[in-house]
Amino acid sequence: MVEAVDGKDTMDRLGDRAAIEDQMFRYARATDWLETDNHRLVFVDDCVFSSPHSGDMRGIDTVVDWMNRVLAPFEATQHHISNIAITFTGEHSAEAVSYVRAWHRFLDHSVPDMILWGEYHDHWIRRDGTWRIAERHVLEAGIEPRRDGGAPNPRRAKQ
Amino acid sequence: MVEAVDGKDTMDRLGDRAAIEDQMFRYARATDWLETDNHRLVFVDDCVFSSPHSGDMRGIDTVVDWMNRVLAPFEATQHHISNIAITFTGEHSAEAVSYVRAWHRFLDHSVPDMILWGEYHDHWIRRDGTWRIAERHVLEAGIEPRRDGGAPNPRRAKQ
Amino acid sequence: MVEAVDGKDTMDRLGDRAAIEDQMFRYARATDWLETDNHRLVFVDDCVFSSPHSGDMRGIDTVVDWMNRVLAPFEATQHHISNIAITFTGEHSAEAVSYVRAWHRFLDHSVPDMILWGEYHDHWIRRDGTWRIAERHVLEAGIEPRRDGGAPNPRRAKQ
Repeated sequence: MVEAVDGKDTMDRLGDRAAIEDQMFRYARATDWLETDNHRLVFVDDCVFSSPHSGDMRGIDTVVDWMNRVLAPFEATQHHISNIAITFTGEHSAEAVSYVRAWHRFLDHSVPDMILWGEYHDHWIRRDGTWRIAERHVLEAGIEPRRDGGAPNPRRAKQ
Repeated sequence: MVEAVDGKDTMDRLGDRAAIEDQMFRYARATDWLETDNHRLVFVDDCVFSSPHSGDMRGIDTVVDWMNRVLAPFEATQHHISNIAITFTGEHSAEAVSYVRAWHRFLDHSVPDMILWGEYHDHWIRRDGTWRIAERHVLEAGIEPRRDGGAPNPRRAKQ
Repeated sequence: MVEAVDGKDTMDRLGDRAAIEDQMFRYARATDWLETDNHRLVFVDDCVFSSPHSGDMRGIDTVVDWMNRVLAPFEATQHHISNIAITFTGEHSAEAVSYVRAWHRFLDHSVPDMILWGEYHDHWIRRDGTWRIAERHVLEAGIEPRRDGGAPNPRRAKQ
């Protein structure tokens, strides 16, 4: 679960880690700044994206269309990414788990801010020299204001 | 307070930093996913753990027992770790200060979410090739909903 | 927008990234621990600092004076920095965008906690071997409790 960090290839892997982290933040900015076409620089064309709210989607066009649709009601969003844990599974592939606190403020001021506490479970691949998301699965630890539903995270699945 | 990052050993230290960060996130996941036995991979056996809620504890068995007890009332938790500042004090030792925003949702839906804004002040050592927490002291900047008590952080100690 | 991370100078740049991140966290601690003189170690003397609340300021003395004044009403603050994206523009210069969730608790218990969701848009330079902030511009995605005003972030500027 925790990558061994030692030996000769550590240095390359540190660069790879930085490159993957940069792409994670690019994802957040593409969402928060409503520059959704930039998701094309983060995902592979034939990506998979699943979340409790989107269901399973395939292909970057579908993802961008969905982003444009679901982001429209918001005045602002902010996706804070933290706890990025990367495990390399091959020269050009990695698994990553990260936490996100996604804050959403509605254009309609009568609706309270919505906050998603989630996890990203990703499969990353390096294609044409660039690390990209091949699969992203969003787990939901909880939503504020509290409501039922969502895909249980491992903690909740135990109960 | 801020580590000088230059010279020959910088590269090794970057690997050490990544290894310590990985362990910090493993701590969060062991807590949030209720896989508390994984704390045995993060702490040394003869660790010290202190917090405003636990008092001073010694030994990994005591820590895991305490985790199991205090985490039971929650439906979900999420520990966002940020602002990780590491200062190496020797080849196999480091001090680290980090911020945590620990969100807690109760199984009892009538109780509001509890959020701890805290700091981890850690002593890390490398033992048998793995970086582990020898001492973790949790400071509390504040708790939501607001309540009295807690160990003051340096800011509050000045007032 | 996303730095290419490859080739010979990657290793130096990884060290530079770590050094800049350390300084970002030092900024947060100087603020949160009310050790505002430590901002002198983070900014260059002739720095620029602008935010919706401060307007444009120039010079580290002005910044420290302002910090002392605006931080006085709080019992505690915590500045969580995340999504740090650094783009090097020269051997000794870089642009950085980061997210901040700045939590403020008032000494006056009748006032609710105030939270700023913001972005730091920085110009960094290396001077005398140390990376420092030459310019910091704070953008505001939103404030809780909700109120009008603030400098719109790129998302809001599109609407």
